Amino acid sequence: MRNSPQTTCADVPSVTASLLEKLRARRPRIHCVTNTVAQNFTANVLLAMGCVPSMTLSREEIGDFIAGSEGLLINLGTLDPERREAITIAIQIAADHKMPWVLDPVFVDRSAPRAAFVRELVSRAPNVVRLNHAEFTALADHAPSYDTVKAYASKHRTIIGLSGETDLVTDGERVMNVANGHPLMTKVTAVGCASSALVAACLAVESDAWRATAAALVILGIAGETAAATAAGPGSFAVSLIDVLYQLDAATVIKQTRVS
Amino acid sequence: MRNSPQTTCADVPSVTASLLEKLRARRPRIHCVTNTVAQNFTANVLLAMGCVPSMTLSREEIGDFIAGSEGLLINLGTLDPERREAITIAIQIAADHKMPWVLDPVFVDRSAPRAAFVRELVSRAPNVVRLNHAEFTALADHAPSYDTVKAYASKHRTIIGLSGETDLVTDGERVMNVANGHPLMTKVTAVGCASSALVAACLAVESDAWRATAAALVILGIAGETAAATAAGPGSFAVSLIDVLYQLDAATVIKQTRVS
Amino acid sequence: MRNSPQTTCADVPSVTASLLEKLRARRPRIHCVTNTVAQNFTANVLLAMGCVPSMTLSREEIGDFIAGSEGLLINLGTLDPERREAITIAIQIAADHKMPWVLDPVFVDRSAPRAAFVRELVSRAPNVVRLNHAEFTALADHAPSYDTVKAYASKHRTIIGLSGETDLVTDGERVMNVANGHPLMTKVTAVGCASSALVAACLAVESDAWRATAAALVILGIAGETAAATAAGPGSFAVSLIDVLYQLDAATVIKQTRVS
Repeated sequence: MRNSPQTTCADVPSVTASLLEKLRARRPRIHCVTNTVAQNFTANVLLAMGCVPSMTLSREEIGDFIAGSEGLLINLGTLDPERREAITIAIQIAADHKMPWVLDPVFVDRSAPRAAFVRELVSRAPNVVRLNHAEFTALADHAPSYDTVKAYASKHRTIIGLSGETDLVTDGERVMNVANGHPLMTKVTAVGCASSALVAACLAVESDAWRATAAALVILGIAGETAAATAAGPGSFAVSLIDVLYQLDAATVIKQTRVS
Repeated sequence: MRNSPQTTCADVPSVTASLLEKLRARRPRIHCVTNTVAQNFTANVLLAMGCVPSMTLSREEIGDFIAGSEGLLINLGTLDPERREAITIAIQIAADHKMPWVLDPVFVDRSAPRAAFVRELVSRAPNVVRLNHAEFTALADHAPSYDTVKAYASKHRTIIGLSGETDLVTDGERVMNVANGHPLMTKVTAVGCASSALVAACLAVESDAWRATAAALVILGIAGETAAATAAGPGSFAVSLIDVLYQLDAATVIKQTRVS
Repeated sequence: MRNSPQTTCADVPSVTASLLEKLRARRPRIHCVTNTVAQNFTANVLLAMGCVPSMTLSREEIGDFIAGSEGLLINLGTLDPERREAITIAIQIAADHKMPWVLDPVFVDRSAPRAAFVRELVSRAPNVVRLNHAEFTALADHAPSYDTVKAYASKHRTIIGLSGETDLVTDGERVMNVANGHPLMTKVTAVGCASSALVAACLAVESDAWRATAAALVILGIAGETAAATAAGPGSFAVSLIDVLYQLDAATVIKQTRVS
């Protein structure tokens, strides 16, 4: 994929750096309906960024938790009936509170009932859908290209954050390529899930969802590159990724952002 | 908060050191009804201390598991209907076996149904309630002070282990301040949950619940200080915390305990 | 336990090394019905070995997930009604697809309903049962010895992978002792669970289940020894175990395999 003429990327480093500082200062509460594999790592990523994560699913409580939050993640993961019900309730509450939410359709390429459920969720207007190439292909019935991803974002009036060797972020008009990142990020479970949680956190402090999505992927990508520089494998990489996110500052973000 | 005249702290270092050695020697089985975010870290903390953790929730099995254990943790965490039922059964079995149990009312400040459920649990006589300032405030309808915490402990005939910059442990009469600890402990998910599990472990080998609670908080606090000394952030801190707990010996406990 | 005359072990190092390379090359999808304590670590072990893990349990989806996989792990862990149903469905689908599956009867020694359920599962012909001494004793009504383990494997026409100071792998005829491993492996939660997942992965690329089981235990044992050499405790050991599995190569396997 090549760059698109509409892209305006010059201010991404400073926007992202400023957003990082807003996260540290405001410490938004982020409620995550996510899978049990990813919960612990996702919570630690959010804590490292200064956010306050919560993960409760029960139908009696999820309303209070979301009402007290500033961002919402919906990640399918181990999609069981309880999560399915929690997701339906959560999205309604987010809509009632005009709260931004992110959809992460994990493994939508692996099961037909899941694909049907995800299509229903997309119709309920997530601010952002973050997914990988296989998931996009299953969802859009097309392999990802600039045209198909832009068309999908336009049609569903959402932001697509497509992870890959280069990440692609588009609202259907604007397109950004995020070159930050490292292959070890695909060798640790829940890194993708945590990146969606980070998008939800960025939405809590930045109203332009396209910029918020790009910023989240830039931040995680920079942290991934930095952690990989000293890691001996995916075990130490995952540990270092949390450390680097915790220590990341605006100056480093400005220096290391690579977008086009 | 200042120290209270009733406090007797001179023997805490040696009591805690002795309790650490009892844990290593007796290896108590601790059953944990806890949230899915905290399960893995909690199990590893208990294993590092020489204990044998189990986490099963199913109504058919939880009786056998608790009957074969020496301590019980009830942590609300992601409070779903299955956990709610498991908790009710578990407390009854603990009462039948005269087994000590610890209540960790995670996020009681975040949802009204949870607060109602926690009040019901407190009435069922937990040996210890371990919680943070926001949780105490929601539960007691007062901000924590020496007076309000002591009054709450007295009224409910339990031990309160209140985590904060300085931890406070009281049975309503005796009060202890535990100064051990490090701010990074609040930047890793499940450290609070694991500290409650450690209280349950200490109750298994020490019949004075006030001393057992203080000892658990001292041990975790010392480990937190030691781990923080070399950590690059919350990722490496969490890893090192487990290592330090595993290696902690009586001499170090005696040297590093800071209580008043 | 001493070696048995039937054992043929000379080719184990090269078979295991070759199997490691097959895993890296084929990247099999392994579906894991496992407990929430072990999910994250198990996923990271499989990813480090080049495999693609999935963990979904829901009755609507588990069929699609298993049909798209090449190996299946059934681990009881926190055995709740949802997992119980998922297990029953999963085994039927595996049978329909002639897909190998591994049974890990965690904590079968701790509850009577669990023991009854495990006996039913054993009757449904798992390719391998991996368990520890306490679990074998509860399941077979005998302490493990060469004779009792061989007899159990023969009677149930399965492979037994018995973990202990020395691991024992038998199909009732052939017996192998795996001396690789380290005591720290018992101080980290989910290492046993992850070893069963690794057996499922090896079954996906090696049709001789006895060899596949031995290879999985050799690989994890070598990684454990290597990780323990530099670990400061179970926290850093668990991190390093993932790194070492990721970097493990055929030459190291050939050099370090210790079987008899």
